[in-house]
Amino acid sequence: MIQVAINGYGTIGKRVADAVALQPDMEVLGVAKTRPNFEAEMAIEKGFPLYAAIEDRADQFAEAGLEIAGLVDELIADADVVVDATPSGIGAENKTLYEDHETPALYQGGEDADIADVSFNARSNYAEAIGVDHVRVVSCNTTGLSRVIAPLREAYGVEKVRATLVRRGGDPGQTGRGPINDILPNPVTIPSHHGPDVETIFDDLDIDTLGMKVPATLMHMHSLNVTLEEEVDADDVRDLFADESRLFLIPERFAIDGSGKLKEYAMDAGRPRADIWENCIWEESISTVGRDLYLFQGIHQESDVVPENVDAIRAVLGEADAETSVETTNETLGIGL
Amino acid sequence: MIQVAINGYGTIGKRVADAVALQPDMEVLGVAKTRPNFEAEMAIEKGFPLYAAIEDRADQFAEAGLEIAGLVDELIADADVVVDATPSGIGAENKTLYEDHETPALYQGGEDADIADVSFNARSNYAEAIGVDHVRVVSCNTTGLSRVIAPLREAYGVEKVRATLVRRGGDPGQTGRGPINDILPNPVTIPSHHGPDVETIFDDLDIDTLGMKVPATLMHMHSLNVTLEEEVDADDVRDLFADESRLFLIPERFAIDGSGKLKEYAMDAGRPRADIWENCIWEESISTVGRDLYLFQGIHQESDVVPENVDAIRAVLGEADAETSVETTNETLGIGL
Repeated sequence: MIQVAINGYGTIGKRVADAVALQPDMEVLGVAKTRPNFEAEMAIEKGFPLYAAIEDRADQFAEAGLEIAGLVDELIADADVVVDATPSGIGAENKTLYEDHETPALYQGGEDADIADVSFNARSNYAEAIGVDHVRVVSCNTTGLSRVIAPLREAYGVEKVRATLVRRGGDPGQTGRGPINDILPNPVTIPSHHGPDVETIFDDLDIDTLGMKVPATLMHMHSLNVTLEEEVDADDVRDLFADESRLFLIPERFAIDGSGKLKEYAMDAGRPRADIWENCIWEESISTVGRDLYLFQGIHQESDVVPENVDAIRAVLGEADAETSVETTNETLGIGL
Repeated sequence: MIQVAINGYGTIGKRVADAVALQPDMEVLGVAKTRPNFEAEMAIEKGFPLYAAIEDRADQFAEAGLEIAGLVDELIADADVVVDATPSGIGAENKTLYEDHETPALYQGGEDADIADVSFNARSNYAEAIGVDHVRVVSCNTTGLSRVIAPLREAYGVEKVRATLVRRGGDPGQTGRGPINDILPNPVTIPSHHGPDVETIFDDLDIDTLGMKVPATLMHMHSLNVTLEEEVDADDVRDLFADESRLFLIPERFAIDGSGKLKEYAMDAGRPRADIWENCIWEESISTVGRDLYLFQGIHQESDVVPENVDAIRAVLGEADAETSVETTNETLGIGL
């Protein structure tokens, strides 16, 4: 059994822990947190050993009545692999800790690409991460773009990608963020970082991205244009996407008009935390004009990287090939709406 | 003096009336409204003769203590030109009224293009509307796109336009509209109607547009890509746009990050109703990658068509050429932030 440490137990960390616990070949060795809160209490309730991420603050857990298993240092020492799910920038500070213990580490997409030897998306470049000690699982938006671009490149060739990413201002629990009642070009300068980030997955791709922020919390929405190398019928693209396990084509008959109904659907389907691990592509939106392909897709910022982290664990440890890993992850999580 | 009737005194009609009243060559002969409300009262306060748009409801004005000058029929009969600023679809119903009185009529962009002989944007095709009896002033978004496309076509040639229009869910006063906390592909199908609408101005243009709706009320935001026929420096495009009177280039030093600060700026500048008649283009966003030009622009949905309506009045009556009309309109309104 692969012993997995999870450093950082917030939005991503807690989801990765739950997903790891479902894998037949993995165990949650422990989760590390900087301070006690409801998530820390629930980690203990779930039976995940809880470690203090900051020695100076370890007492706070006892004061809050929470028993910790030790300090993060011990957790990393004992683990086969660590998933760093700390806030952007903290992963870079943690790298020496992982190096000191020679524990292979996964970082999240908020870190700079150069923190790792490989940036990872299971569908696009799983094999590149096999046996690599420092791997970065790309961000939710980059994951969402890569999952669509990979099959298009293989089937038709891609001349250029242009995407406008209309991003949720914050997650539902991030009450201090904005905007309210506004549409912000964000960043104002072009391209946004997402284009170069996708190029860490496909190094020869021509892609320009533009970002905005709006007063919504549920999901991101991509307006995607891909100029293909050949003219293709929209129906063929639909068929291509239908074969991809992590692309969910929203059927017209569902009458799902946006993120709200998508999350409602996920809740009705019994998904944990109403998570949507798949890209949500409106089937009707898939259109072609000459070699230009267009579509809308919703990206659940809190969860689409979760299966990718699980696959990356197997990749860095060389425990499975891409197909086997993705199949196991999909089956255990219940991916495939 | 051109005697102008304004049929419909809501968001657009009241602004057009104020703008007409400022013109040296025009007079507001009267405004027509279906029912009394605060806007009807203010029309009278401003000295605009108020007409009942629906005979059966004329009594309501008296009941509300408002003196009307007559029925819309009389107003149209006496006017040199009528600006129809009624809700989408009502303009089409009104067309026979205008024809019966042989009064040249302007319609708004919410009407189908085939209501009129010419779709109008002052910068792009003023001359086509000269002496034409039925002219449609295109919508706020189409106006915003046309103002940018016209100079680019003239200076460099345009191969293709791709635009994502992130639209405000409703105007500030439209309390019954949504979405709240969502990002809706709208329409889900591609292209949105905006692309074909821009083609009513430039009939040989290749343009694909995608629309979304978000929980904001202040302005629309365009993520615009124009593939030019030649490679151009972004600085040259900035210079080109700086010469356009209805394009406002937001300087970086203003630290304006979105619609909220833009409207705040318009209020500080003493603009009536904080109207922003110009396209608001973030100067830093103007970028080129090979022949691809990108930019973000904010479009004030309530007011950018107002100067266009004023110019269209002069065009249909053949009272001035484009340059003279635009200059007069700009000067009287105070266009040029």
